[in-house]
Amino acid sequence: MAVYTDITEDDLIRFLAAYDVGALTSYKGIAEGVENSNFLLHTTKGSYILTLYEKRVNAEDLPFFLGLMHHLAERGLSCPLPLPRADGKLLGTLSGRPAAVITFLEGMWLRKPEAQHCREVGRALASMHIAGEGFPLKRANALSVAGWRPLWQNSEARADEVQSGLKDEIAAELAYLEDHWPKGLPEGVIHADLFPDNVFFLGDRLSGLIDFYFACNDFLAYDLAVCLNSWCFEKDGSYNITKGMALLSGYESVRRLTADEVAALPLLARGSALRFFLTRLYDWLMTPAGALVVKKDPLEYLTKIRFHRAIVSSAEYGLRREEASA
Amino acid sequence: MAVYTDITEDDLIRFLAAYDVGALTSYKGIAEGVENSNFLLHTTKGSYILTLYEKRVNAEDLPFFLGLMHHLAERGLSCPLPLPRADGKLLGTLSGRPAAVITFLEGMWLRKPEAQHCREVGRALASMHIAGEGFPLKRANALSVAGWRPLWQNSEARADEVQSGLKDEIAAELAYLEDHWPKGLPEGVIHADLFPDNVFFLGDRLSGLIDFYFACNDFLAYDLAVCLNSWCFEKDGSYNITKGMALLSGYESVRRLTADEVAALPLLARGSALRFFLTRLYDWLMTPAGALVVKKDPLEYLTKIRFHRAIVSSAEYGLRREEASA
Repeated sequence: MAVYTDITEDDLIRFLAAYDVGALTSYKGIAEGVENSNFLLHTTKGSYILTLYEKRVNAEDLPFFLGLMHHLAERGLSCPLPLPRADGKLLGTLSGRPAAVITFLEGMWLRKPEAQHCREVGRALASMHIAGEGFPLKRANALSVAGWRPLWQNSEARADEVQSGLKDEIAAELAYLEDHWPKGLPEGVIHADLFPDNVFFLGDRLSGLIDFYFACNDFLAYDLAVCLNSWCFEKDGSYNITKGMALLSGYESVRRLTADEVAALPLLARGSALRFFLTRLYDWLMTPAGALVVKKDPLEYLTKIRFHRAIVSSAEYGLRREEASA
Repeated sequence: MAVYTDITEDDLIRFLAAYDVGALTSYKGIAEGVENSNFLLHTTKGSYILTLYEKRVNAEDLPFFLGLMHHLAERGLSCPLPLPRADGKLLGTLSGRPAAVITFLEGMWLRKPEAQHCREVGRALASMHIAGEGFPLKRANALSVAGWRPLWQNSEARADEVQSGLKDEIAAELAYLEDHWPKGLPEGVIHADLFPDNVFFLGDRLSGLIDFYFACNDFLAYDLAVCLNSWCFEKDGSYNITKGMALLSGYESVRRLTADEVAALPLLARGSALRFFLTRLYDWLMTPAGALVVKKDPLEYLTKIRFHRAIVSSAEYGLRREEASA
C-alpha cells in the first residue's frame, strides 16, 4: 500500500497542464507499488497513472526506467507508456518529487496463475528481452551477486532469530554462489522483478507488463530464473513442473536459450532465490512491529534455495531439450 | 490508506456476475476510507467503487447506510448510489466480508477549500437534510453526548501525556456539555462526518457527497456544527468568519435554522469539537509507534473547543440574522 505523498488538486491541475491528457475529473491514491506513490487519474480523455518517485528510488535511475518503457512500448511490447510533456521530457516535478504520467493498462494480476498463464509470461519475457535490444542507457543490477554480501551483512547477526541455523546455511550458500556465479552469458535489459503482480491479464490473454523499477542490464536467463521462482512454485513450497514447462517453452517459442544458459539455470535460480530471500529477510527484521505493511516471509525463499540446490539438470525444471540432460 | 482484504480476480468476477456492470477490466485498491477496504473497478460499462466492510463496521448498520444512499440519490442528492444485485439486494458477500458496489462519483476533494466552496457545502448539507426526510430506518448517534464519557474513560488516565492539564480541562468540558446539551432541536438524518475529504468538486461546482458510514439520526444543526469545525478554521487554528458566513448562508438558502438552533449552535460546535477531539485522542494514544497511519492531531480540536467556549452568540460565527444577536 503506497501513498506517501498527498497532492493538492491545484498542484495536480497545474502539473497536468503540460500534458495532452484533457481535464482532470478525479484522482485516487492506489495501493500498488511499495517504492513510490501512485494515483489513478480519470480525465476527459481517459485513465492514467501518476507516479511520484519517493526517496527510495534514485532519481538518477529515472531516465533509464522511463526511457526503457518508452523504448519497449515503441517496439510493440504492451507496457505502460510514459507521456511526454509539452517540453518533450518524460519527467516533471510535483509536490517536490520527480513525477511521471503513464498510460493506464487495463487488466488484472492473477492471484492464482495456471500453466497457461506461465506460458504467456514466458513468451512476454522473451519478447521484452528482444524488444530491449538497442536501448542505449545502461543500469547495473545492484541486487545481483555483488550486492548480496552487503545486504547479508545487515541481517546476518539476527538471522537465527528467524530460524535456527539460518546464519550458517545462508553464509555457505552465499559463498558458494560468489565462487560459482556464471560468466559470459547473453546479456541485455531485464525486468528483474516479473512477479505475478507485475503482469496483467484480461481473461486468459496477457494484457501487459508493469513496474520496470528494478529493470537493469544483466544475464537474460537470470530474468527467467526470477520467473521460475515467482510463478512455478505452489503455496506449499512444491515446484510445479507443468508450470515450469509452460514458462520455459513459452520463453523458448520466442527466444531459444543457449547451451550455456541452460547449464547455468539451476545456479541462476539459486541466486535469484537468494536475492529475494535477502531483501525479505532485511525487511522482516527491520520493519517495526505493528506497522501496517504486509511483511513477506523470507522462509518461502529459503525453501526455494534448497530446492534449486538439489537440481542436477535443467530438465528437472521441465526444459524439454537434449542439452538439458547433458 | 485502506486495503485490509485482498480479493482474487476469480472471486471478484463471480461476485460481479450478480450486478449489471458489464465485464471487469481492472480493479485497484484505493487509499480512501479508514474503516473499510475500497477498490476502484473499471468495467466495459464504466467505473465503480467496490467496498468491503471490515470488522470495525457493524454489519447491522449496513442496511441503514446503503438504504440511505439509495434514498438520497433517488431524491436527487448527488451521492454514490449502491447498485442492486440480481436478487434486488444492495449487499453481497466477497472474501468473507459484506460487500457493495456503488457508482463512482467523478470529482476531487479540496485540500484548500475557499469561502465559495463552504457556501456550496452548506447548501448541499441542507439539501441532504431535506432529502433525508421520510427515510424509514433509524440509527442512533453513538458518538453524540452519551457516547463521549465512555470514550473519554479510555484515554483519561494518559491525557496529560499529550499536553499537561488536558485531563482536567476535558473533564470539565465534558461535564459542562453533559449538563447543558440541548434538547428538542429539529432532528433528522445527519451525515455526521462531512469533512472536506467527503465532498467532491469538479472545478468550483460541488459534484457530490460521499462516505455515509457515520450517518445517523440526530439534531440537524449538529451536522452544521461539524462543518463549521471542519471547513471554517485555518491551519493556524483561527476561525475564518468569511467561510463561516458562506457556510451558514449557503445552508440557510435551502433550510432556515430555527431560533432554538441558532441559540444552540455554540454549544453544538463545542460538542462536535469534543467528539473529534476524543476520537483523535484515543487513536493518538492507541496507535503503535511506527505504524504507517497518519495520526490526526487531537490538539487541533482542543483549540476549536476553546474557541467555541468563548462564543457568546451565533453572530460571531457569521450568522446574519436578528435572532443571532439575541
